[in-house]
Amino acid sequence: MEEPSFSPGRERLHEIIFEADTPAGKVFDVLLLIFIAASVITVMLESIEPLQAEYAQLFTLVEWGFTLVFTAEYLLRLYCVYRPLKYAASFFGVIDLLAILPSYLALILPASQYFLIIRAFRLIRIFRVFKLGHFLKEGEVIVQALKASRAKIIVFLTFVSLLVLIIGALMYLIEGGSNPGFSSIPRSVYWAIVTLTTVGYGDITPTTDVGRFISGAVMILGYAIIAVPTGIVSAEFVSEYYGQKVSTQNCRYCGREGHEHDAIYCKYCGEQLNP
Amino acid sequence: MEEPSFSPGRERLHEIIFEADTPAGKVFDVLLLIFIAASVITVMLESIEPLQAEYAQLFTLVEWGFTLVFTAEYLLRLYCVYRPLKYAASFFGVIDLLAILPSYLALILPASQYFLIIRAFRLIRIFRVFKLGHFLKEGEVIVQALKASRAKIIVFLTFVSLLVLIIGALMYLIEGGSNPGFSSIPRSVYWAIVTLTTVGYGDITPTTDVGRFISGAVMILGYAIIAVPTGIVSAEFVSEYYGQKVSTQNCRYCGREGHEHDAIYCKYCGEQLNP
Amino acid sequence: MEEPSFSPGRERLHEIIFEADTPAGKVFDVLLLIFIAASVITVMLESIEPLQAEYAQLFTLVEWGFTLVFTAEYLLRLYCVYRPLKYAASFFGVIDLLAILPSYLALILPASQYFLIIRAFRLIRIFRVFKLGHFLKEGEVIVQALKASRAKIIVFLTFVSLLVLIIGALMYLIEGGSNPGFSSIPRSVYWAIVTLTTVGYGDITPTTDVGRFISGAVMILGYAIIAVPTGIVSAEFVSEYYGQKVSTQNCRYCGREGHEHDAIYCKYCGEQLNP
Amino acid sequence: MEEPSFSPGRERLHEIIFEADTPAGKVFDVLLLIFIAASVITVMLESIEPLQAEYAQLFTLVEWGFTLVFTAEYLLRLYCVYRPLKYAASFFGVIDLLAILPSYLALILPASQYFLIIRAFRLIRIFRVFKLGHFLKEGEVIVQALKASRAKIIVFLTFVSLLVLIIGALMYLIEGGSNPGFSSIPRSVYWAIVTLTTVGYGDITPTTDVGRFISGAVMILGYAIIAVPTGIVSAEFVSEYYGQKVSTQNCRYCGREGHEHDAIYCKYCGEQLNP
Repeated sequence: MEEPSFSPGRERLHEIIFEADTPAGKVFDVLLLIFIAASVITVMLESIEPLQAEYAQLFTLVEWGFTLVFTAEYLLRLYCVYRPLKYAASFFGVIDLLAILPSYLALILPASQYFLIIRAFRLIRIFRVFKLGHFLKEGEVIVQALKASRAKIIVFLTFVSLLVLIIGALMYLIEGGSNPGFSSIPRSVYWAIVTLTTVGYGDITPTTDVGRFISGAVMILGYAIIAVPTGIVSAEFVSEYYGQKVSTQNCRYCGREGHEHDAIYCKYCGEQLNP
Repeated sequence: MEEPSFSPGRERLHEIIFEADTPAGKVFDVLLLIFIAASVITVMLESIEPLQAEYAQLFTLVEWGFTLVFTAEYLLRLYCVYRPLKYAASFFGVIDLLAILPSYLALILPASQYFLIIRAFRLIRIFRVFKLGHFLKEGEVIVQALKASRAKIIVFLTFVSLLVLIIGALMYLIEGGSNPGFSSIPRSVYWAIVTLTTVGYGDITPTTDVGRFISGAVMILGYAIIAVPTGIVSAEFVSEYYGQKVSTQNCRYCGREGHEHDAIYCKYCGEQLNP
Repeated sequence: MEEPSFSPGRERLHEIIFEADTPAGKVFDVLLLIFIAASVITVMLESIEPLQAEYAQLFTLVEWGFTLVFTAEYLLRLYCVYRPLKYAASFFGVIDLLAILPSYLALILPASQYFLIIRAFRLIRIFRVFKLGHFLKEGEVIVQALKASRAKIIVFLTFVSLLVLIIGALMYLIEGGSNPGFSSIPRSVYWAIVTLTTVGYGDITPTTDVGRFISGAVMILGYAIIAVPTGIVSAEFVSEYYGQKVSTQNCRYCGREGHEHDAIYCKYCGEQLNP
Repeated sequence: MEEPSFSPGRERLHEIIFEADTPAGKVFDVLLLIFIAASVITVMLESIEPLQAEYAQLFTLVEWGFTLVFTAEYLLRLYCVYRPLKYAASFFGVIDLLAILPSYLALILPASQYFLIIRAFRLIRIFRVFKLGHFLKEGEVIVQALKASRAKIIVFLTFVSLLVLIIGALMYLIEGGSNPGFSSIPRSVYWAIVTLTTVGYGDITPTTDVGRFISGAVMILGYAIIAVPTGIVSAEFVSEYYGQKVSTQNCRYCGREGHEHDAIYCKYCGEQLNP
């Protein structure tokens, strides 16, 4: 598939908006970051009732300002991208559209009724920050360590989920009759999660002696369990610092793997390894 | 001991139900997983009073559906296993029986009176998920790391148990007179566990100045203590990444150390190591 | 200094009571452990008001039983130890005496008035468990790792203490006027400890917007800080698994240290190291 | 720039006050530490209303005592330092001034009105403890490990901040209508921080079923997330235990790798490494 040829101006615009290598591109990124942050803070302030009551008009004005800026950005992106439809259907294309839509919808819909939903949709703008992900070179190590330990962490979280189900059911059996906080299994499971993760709101607490005894056991158990994900991720980070200790080389004679980087002879058959 | 010879159909059934290597066996496993999950969710929903009140008949119907399916599975397992009695007495055999028993018991017993116990017994079905353990290849590393650090973690938990006893007794002495939350030593120990594990419900909190001072000290102590299990498990995971610890053996020919436990030949000079 | 010569019976008694190598010594240790555990549980149950009210006489009887057994043990120890005075003045000697004293004191003092203190003193028996420390071979690795990181952990806890003082003072300034929970600096510091260690009772919580903002910052900070003791102890455990990577050898020619175990030549001057 | 030449007495004073190598310097440091600790404790006690009411005069007296001592110390430092203005404008110079200013200001200002601010300013004295940082040799490893992982931890905290914004907005949407605790987005974000960091005050808790379900998911997520900073810092500490990472350099003569960054000669064959 051939790349469509753009006018130099449109090419330049593409460079500024979609890349961060040129000074102009960097300025654009920083400006965008400031606008996103400012718009997110505005939505947050807007949600505070007393502020909304007093500065309703100012908020509407500022909101429309942001909407116009983001609309202009959205249209510019559509204009200078090589395949507009592909961009519009991409994750960030949809996010960009959802971020400006609420203001236009508020013109049609009775805003007073749907204001919660409109506000929440506006906060989708937060996701646009990830567009500037290339700022965060340092984050790659973290992401890589998490990716490498993903499978183990999923298994661990599955195990924790089963555990809270069992603990929740047990506490429902013990406290269910006398304590309204444990009146159903889902509620007891919620309590088990709050306890095992050491969050401990205290909105639901055991009141019987047996319940307290089991809670104590669950907490001490949670103490040991919290060590597992930390151990997994720590080992991953350590291994990223030191690289693979075992080389990928296999012996030409016996074909076995698992040699260390400093090995000269195969530790299994004694023949020389490839240099 | 000789294996009894089964008809090919019975052999095939055994393969499907007890193994997961064939496509049919995999389909069976996935179906079973769905049924277990669905039945567990049903029991959980059933325990919510308003739902139970409105959909009592539907729940009874669905419960009987699951009971029949699991009964059929149980009978099939008994039919196609080589030693039915051994299976029936095994951990999963007992679990399978306990998972279907409550529904039949509810026919005889006045369900309204024992409903809590019947419901809890139904939740035993959760344990049947572990039957599908072979799905979780990734979990073996976790289990192995935990097994290797088991002895150390038990010692640590014993130490924590003694610590909460001592802290609990101390706080009983200080707050016991004025604060109903510390009215007995077991209750004070419960508070000490809640605090040291950083759960912190807040249902029992110190009210005297001395009590608060000691609580603060306990929390900062807990900060250092929580590092211990994490350190143990982390070290175990790191050691699993880097293979076995290096043996203390040195080569008779070149005298060098640093050989792994499974090395037969010196990796530096290629001569055979002492057996 | 010469060892006093005992009669064989007294020697044998010493072996049984103070050592755990002989079968009789092991039986003695296990019996003692059971007695200590039983007496600790008795003291705990005694502190529960309703139980005390109902079974007061039974508790008195059982307490006297334990007191007589422990008195006999104490006297036997004094009898068969080489230097009775040294034992009586040692940590465990004092603990042993304090564990039996309360019951005798209760005969003289009006127990109803000092019952809290007498009970607490009885619980000193818990410490006697540590006498059986030789049971816990596995605990040595933990103790060693903690000892090695002791200096770092003390520095860390000092830093945390300063941090909670500063945070507490700041919150006293912000919330002090309007929130009774922050009415004094010590109380605010207590809140800071509860928050930074992620215990989070909720008995004192910020109510102003600025206070909540700062609390949030403190919590996210605490997230990063909790990693420090864990990192210290983890590194210690890892190093205990792999031993010292750097050997203690120094070069005969340039005198410098820091060579790895597998080094043959000095990495600084190129001369051969001692084999 | 030439050092100004002082009289021997002034030189000696400089040595005592600014260095800790001489016995007199050590005595000065210890005395200062005691005075700082005592003055901080005084400010803390002063903030307790009942104590303040009863011992108001005593507190004023003690405060003036500390103020005079610290003023003398400040003037001495100005007198014996080589560049008084540079010291006065430095971090510790400003801290020292701020620590004595409140008492003098209280003479002019109506103390009863500004007492909260005056007290808080007095607590600035805590920062003077860091002046004695040379006591804490052990702290350097911690600081170095934190510095090395600074970039990664900042990225992580940024990510956590975005996460709590998104979770807060989601909960505002779900609970906002019915639960006063989630009445605005900033408040919901505060809840999200309290939950994700496992502090869990319980002053704001979800009350709807959907809200509880999402809270549970957030907590289990937080379980996995807390592993990240710990993993980062652990890896850093481990790497500090084992010295620098191994360089990628290989020897020109024997071709072997695994040399440390500070190696000059090949540890295997003794030849010089590439510079």
